[in-house]
Amino acid sequence: MFSYVPPIDDYRFLLTQVLGFDRAMAETGKDVDADLAAAVLEEAGRMCAERLHPINRHGDEEGSRLIDGEVHTPEGFADAWRDFVAAGWPSLAAAPEYGGQGLPFILQLWLDEMLAAANMSFGLFPGLTRGACEAIAAHADDSLKATYLSRMVSGEWTGAMALTESGAGTDLALLKAKAVPDADGGYAVTGQKIFISSGDHDFGGNIIHLVLARLPDAPAGVKGISLFLVPKYLPDADGNFTVRNAMSVGALEKKMGIHAQPTCVMNYDGATGWLVGEPHRGLAAMFTMMNAERLMVGIQGLGIAGAAYQQAAGYAKERLQGRSADGTREPVAIIEHADVRRMLLNIRAFVEGARALGGWTALQLDRAHHHEDAAERAKADGLVALLTPVVKAAFTDYGFESAVQAQQVFGGHGYIREWGMEQYVRDARIAQIYEGTNGVQAMDLVGRKLPMAGGAVVEGFFALVADDLGAAGASGIAVSTREALALLREVTASLRGAGVEAAGAAAADYLRLFALVSMGWMWTRMAAAEGDTPLHDAKRAVADFFAQRMLPQVRGLAGSIAAGEATIMALAADAF
Amino acid sequence: MFSYVPPIDDYRFLLTQVLGFDRAMAETGKDVDADLAAAVLEEAGRMCAERLHPINRHGDEEGSRLIDGEVHTPEGFADAWRDFVAAGWPSLAAAPEYGGQGLPFILQLWLDEMLAAANMSFGLFPGLTRGACEAIAAHADDSLKATYLSRMVSGEWTGAMALTESGAGTDLALLKAKAVPDADGGYAVTGQKIFISSGDHDFGGNIIHLVLARLPDAPAGVKGISLFLVPKYLPDADGNFTVRNAMSVGALEKKMGIHAQPTCVMNYDGATGWLVGEPHRGLAAMFTMMNAERLMVGIQGLGIAGAAYQQAAGYAKERLQGRSADGTREPVAIIEHADVRRMLLNIRAFVEGARALGGWTALQLDRAHHHEDAAERAKADGLVALLTPVVKAAFTDYGFESAVQAQQVFGGHGYIREWGMEQYVRDARIAQIYEGTNGVQAMDLVGRKLPMAGGAVVEGFFALVADDLGAAGASGIAVSTREALALLREVTASLRGAGVEAAGAAAADYLRLFALVSMGWMWTRMAAAEGDTPLHDAKRAVADFFAQRMLPQVRGLAGSIAAGEATIMALAADAF
Repeated sequence: MFSYVPPIDDYRFLLTQVLGFDRAMAETGKDVDADLAAAVLEEAGRMCAERLHPINRHGDEEGSRLIDGEVHTPEGFADAWRDFVAAGWPSLAAAPEYGGQGLPFILQLWLDEMLAAANMSFGLFPGLTRGACEAIAAHADDSLKATYLSRMVSGEWTGAMALTESGAGTDLALLKAKAVPDADGGYAVTGQKIFISSGDHDFGGNIIHLVLARLPDAPAGVKGISLFLVPKYLPDADGNFTVRNAMSVGALEKKMGIHAQPTCVMNYDGATGWLVGEPHRGLAAMFTMMNAERLMVGIQGLGIAGAAYQQAAGYAKERLQGRSADGTREPVAIIEHADVRRMLLNIRAFVEGARALGGWTALQLDRAHHHEDAAERAKADGLVALLTPVVKAAFTDYGFESAVQAQQVFGGHGYIREWGMEQYVRDARIAQIYEGTNGVQAMDLVGRKLPMAGGAVVEGFFALVADDLGAAGASGIAVSTREALALLREVTASLRGAGVEAAGAAAADYLRLFALVSMGWMWTRMAAAEGDTPLHDAKRAVADFFAQRMLPQVRGLAGSIAAGEATIMALAADAF
Repeated sequence: MFSYVPPIDDYRFLLTQVLGFDRAMAETGKDVDADLAAAVLEEAGRMCAERLHPINRHGDEEGSRLIDGEVHTPEGFADAWRDFVAAGWPSLAAAPEYGGQGLPFILQLWLDEMLAAANMSFGLFPGLTRGACEAIAAHADDSLKATYLSRMVSGEWTGAMALTESGAGTDLALLKAKAVPDADGGYAVTGQKIFISSGDHDFGGNIIHLVLARLPDAPAGVKGISLFLVPKYLPDADGNFTVRNAMSVGALEKKMGIHAQPTCVMNYDGATGWLVGEPHRGLAAMFTMMNAERLMVGIQGLGIAGAAYQQAAGYAKERLQGRSADGTREPVAIIEHADVRRMLLNIRAFVEGARALGGWTALQLDRAHHHEDAAERAKADGLVALLTPVVKAAFTDYGFESAVQAQQVFGGHGYIREWGMEQYVRDARIAQIYEGTNGVQAMDLVGRKLPMAGGAVVEGFFALVADDLGAAGASGIAVSTREALALLREVTASLRGAGVEAAGAAAADYLRLFALVSMGWMWTRMAAAEGDTPLHDAKRAVADFFAQRMLPQVRGLAGSIAAGEATIMALAADAF
């Protein structure tokens, strides 16, 4: 297996030549320039490449195990976590008022990319902790914040999100866990939750679960769900967290991938918890977590694709099979074969386009939180809301497909565990499912995000893209993306006012069309960047590939969408 | 997990109303009508559903293991094999002169579908045995045939194909195994082979390896490779096969899937073998095996997709999540949601289209072997050669994608091992790789098959399809497929005389375009079948879906192909 090389040069290129990082920092009052940002990413990359990548393969083989009710993570994980915390990585972009470093979210996003690339199972520990912190910071009262937040931000304690039950996944209206008020202002939480990432571990420290449950007087449906903070350890008389709460790991889920990650079945047996936010308003608090997590999950797809690309490109340059096109007798490296290049370029065009688009979205998130002008904050907030399902679903779909193509480059060796390529495929697969399946993301985009502000948000985004493309002149990628954008606008207009079935029938294809245009926009920006280094040359070459080989797919997608819902709804349910 | 229901009604429909089975049998001198064929398939389906499907999940968990040099297959496999052999299934379509039942190949093909659907790891035992039998029957001398063939045809003994070495996969010119003549007319074969499916097992009986190796005087490259029959047991003085040959299992490959299948690293240490066919002409003999295997492997993709569809459709009809489009408050089965239907229909439109196309190809194989008219035999042979890479690559690519979509229908449960959906994904993945990667298939189609007879074979196929579509009138599927065929013809013409790089750049997209048109042709035939049963109604509904939601992809594919090789070859190898 080849080592993992963090894409620092690409980050630096994006920061300085594509995304307008320094200006964005000035607008959001952050005292960070591109040099500092790149230095931070370099340091983060070293942690990922040198500490986390080397334990990824073994982590898959050993997996997390449950022994006498205690979770044992694979060898090396607890040590790596201690180093990760000691270096301050969990607090990178958290707010300074809770002990965070207050660095821009784009650095967090790219750290997440490198974490997923190096060791996706590991990356879920800080990822879920961060999501839990966001919900607590946004919705919990001051006392809960004072007790829990700074220790979670630092990584001394970790977090977990306990939402799903066996009968309630996408549809949380069906959830059954109960919370009954106790005498001390707390609640006794009872129920079983499944698929709980990082639900328990052996890193030491407390584990803070955010649990969705119903109060006794709760209305039916999603409007009767509340969120509770339920720690693994409760405070003793001296205020030290030493008392085991009434919660336990029922089992570890046996999964397709992310074996090192302890995904728990959790049993809460009257566990003590505290209400986070208003009664019956748990869904709003949950979405605070989910939105943060959805960007991270999208970036996981990108991260795995980038790592798989590196492995496949390395292998393709070394593996000798077949003859060159000019008929030379000696075997050539398979990188010379057009079909191998096609697969590698498919991955690369996605990875670099998505890295740029993810970075752009992250800068909008900083603007949404920190821009001095309220109108700009609102505008940026709309753009993040619009792009979030695109990043989550398209990046994880392309990420999985990229891992599959990278595996294919290895031929038979790609199917053998020791080479590590099949692990990328198994690990990447979950990102299409968790934090809202990609079907749910697509419905979110078409059913909720397109109609935002009467369509003004998506129209604003298209106008922004059109301006950029117009300014980019007559490069191949600019022209192709302009055509694709025109098609996307037509299709968007055709979906205005679509009913649930029409929206559902179009949603998946529409989201992919949207993602292709958005990545084409980023490729246009990248191709327009001035410079004649090998990186600039490669950017222009891959932009051409994207324009000529990937963008044409928009025609097929638009054709499918135009067919509407009739053929999808025609067959009776029992004829399936 | 739901039970597996063999698609007997669909087979019967195809035999009687779509593929002209009775006429094909008359032309090939086989005394088999559709009723008998359906009865055989029904019996085969019972074996697959009742004996092999129930041990599939456990087979994955236990896996085959190597203990003290001996392979142990999972519990139940050896018993199932004995029953499978006792019922005569290994000999179904083999030639009567070697003890075969001489039934038409289409029954074998559909048995292979049901085997892959029920238990892909198991299906590789008879599959590889059959491939080895084909090579022996076509190339070995009478003495070898007399000794080995009938016992392999019956399934008393099994076969394995030992081609790949760690440095020689796609490119067999690089292989290093040696064969040195011994004093008795045999050879001492030495070398290591990897990825050897069914290389050893505990079913009892001999295991006949066909091994590619070089003779001492062999020219370099592929023209210096010979094929040797190397049995696990050699005859003792009494002619009983009790003497262990100098070959051993070095390891079992640790794989992504097909865990129950013992995929061996084989060491031959001067093992005794006999030449099959002419010296240095091993590649021709190998292709006899490979061509038979490639159809089977394609059908594996179809089989897994069909089984995964059944599971996903069953789950979608039972799983309650979300509300119906009419706003009813009670949760509905997820089969009501358009995006779930879209995924299921994608799978089904592939499965039934591919089942028909595979069946059509199988009937051509029977015509190629048994038609009384030599010109008809040659014509059919060309069609089989043309369609083989399409069946192998498109069916396994769509098969894998189908398994992934079926897994997606299960949401989070799809990622959990016990539900079995992730096993389909892991098992299906290998079919895109083995027996020649799908990239190799695509190059075979564009580089070798299109130019056959100066293009006359592919033109003949297109003319046949065009005639059929013309006769089908103005149904939606007929019209859409006619348009798609016109596009395919244009693209085909554009590839005439393409160089290696241009062919390689186009190949994968071209193969998929070819497959879409071919399946559209079959959907046109199916939609035109007269009848008003629920099956007929469903065929017309799914044909509409295929026409309106899947066929539009041809536009994107044609667009990518039109871009040529420039953007693929532009980047220097070291810039990847």
